[in-house]
Amino acid sequence: MSRVTARRKTVRLSPAGRVERPDTLAVEEPLEIRVDGQSLSVTMRTPGNDIDLVHGFLLGENIIGTADDIVTARYCAGTDSEGRNTYNVLDVRLRDPVPLHPRNLVTTGGCGLCGKSALDEVRTHTRFPLPPAVPAVGTEVLTRMPGLLREGQKLFDATGGLHAAGLFTTDGTLLALREDIGRHNAVDKVIGWAVRENRIPAHDLVLVVSSRASFELVQKAVMAGIPILAAVSAPSALAVDLAVESGSTLLGFVRGESMNIYSGENRVT
Amino acid sequence: MSRVTARRKTVRLSPAGRVERPDTLAVEEPLEIRVDGQSLSVTMRTPGNDIDLVHGFLLGENIIGTADDIVTARYCAGTDSEGRNTYNVLDVRLRDPVPLHPRNLVTTGGCGLCGKSALDEVRTHTRFPLPPAVPAVGTEVLTRMPGLLREGQKLFDATGGLHAAGLFTTDGTLLALREDIGRHNAVDKVIGWAVRENRIPAHDLVLVVSSRASFELVQKAVMAGIPILAAVSAPSALAVDLAVESGSTLLGFVRGESMNIYSGENRVT
Repeated sequence: MSRVTARRKTVRLSPAGRVERPDTLAVEEPLEIRVDGQSLSVTMRTPGNDIDLVHGFLLGENIIGTADDIVTARYCAGTDSEGRNTYNVLDVRLRDPVPLHPRNLVTTGGCGLCGKSALDEVRTHTRFPLPPAVPAVGTEVLTRMPGLLREGQKLFDATGGLHAAGLFTTDGTLLALREDIGRHNAVDKVIGWAVRENRIPAHDLVLVVSSRASFELVQKAVMAGIPILAAVSAPSALAVDLAVESGSTLLGFVRGESMNIYSGENRVT
Repeated sequence: MSRVTARRKTVRLSPAGRVERPDTLAVEEPLEIRVDGQSLSVTMRTPGNDIDLVHGFLLGENIIGTADDIVTARYCAGTDSEGRNTYNVLDVRLRDPVPLHPRNLVTTGGCGLCGKSALDEVRTHTRFPLPPAVPAVGTEVLTRMPGLLREGQKLFDATGGLHAAGLFTTDGTLLALREDIGRHNAVDKVIGWAVRENRIPAHDLVLVVSSRASFELVQKAVMAGIPILAAVSAPSALAVDLAVESGSTLLGFVRGESMNIYSGENRVT
């Protein structure tokens, strides 16, 4: 996966002086996601695990519910100026066509996000309602997870510039880890892994992210039926509101032996 | 600005025990940007300085070049279920109508981002080419900037969850600082401030961000004619490529007395 990191010439200035050296950086490239030939979204992502990414993205957008909903997912045959496939466009064919609303494009003529109804629309309803109180996970298992995630972050060590998302079992085993320059992409990739492994709804898994918890990340977890989201840093107020509304467990500042529980304390034992 | 932060009930678990307490969190709400009645983009942002945000966003999208290009920017009169204006839709009227391409929506029938031409399109060309070697800024001035930015981050202290962007003069004076849950929004807000102050092209300013430097942030700086972008954390490889291509200065890991120069060393003295 040489496309995941790249080396660039760097000048390092420090009290020790001026040193020229190559630096390893995270690769960032656009990925266009097409569904049945129609362009749906362009995301700036770190190449690698793109098939996972589209599975997770389409689940989060309520376009698919299982891996079987996708017949094929293949790179477009387009080439760059040197005639190489850039692997930056993925074409997905669905088993059953669905009407598409390109992301970030509000098509309604009304007052859009001013109204409660439009905000409800943003809070896309999940196909997988959460079981009320399960799973229950011990605090000592939960506080161990960010460290295990960090240990698995091979690319962060090289670049210092990548987010990670991991799926854990309730006994603290790391099942899958994905890294990306965008935390939403890292989450899409790891949820896409679960889609392809037929583990959706993932009622028995814990999603851990190396970052803050935004509304979007809670939404992606809820859409996948994941009952617990643990973040190393702060959540937003809207992320908390969505977690409360959907009955999911949201943990923030999971560091050392401490954590903040913003919603769903019943799953923490 | 009570809408910038919000308090939510939190349970804090630590070796000291279980404590219930309110926690101050960053507010995250959708903002729909409309131009001449057409919906252009929805961004999840922290409310506040929305007028700055749209000015910076529209400059970065090459839709405006100066504040005079905008006749009016006002909140839509829509209301939520309790009859209150949610201030989440901004309507912008342009002096001269321009054709709009909703963001993240690739409309070309061809192979989109596979081709070099489409990538060139992502690298929107700036109206304000950079002067080759000016301004020149001393390393001791540059390394002081992140600390000044951090000192000015009132909201980060409260929430622990906000990015900051600041515009500095070449002698190290902080002119404007904006905070947001999204780093691209923080940059749009501070560049929008410069648009409204008629400081574009900002050939004499330095943009400092509390985060990593993505392609998008370099692009926004270049579009505003800002010659130097300094980030506290790592850049992506594509961010470096764009900085080299556009002749701008890109600094990363500006911490303590050290920094990495990825492009444009001629402006660092």
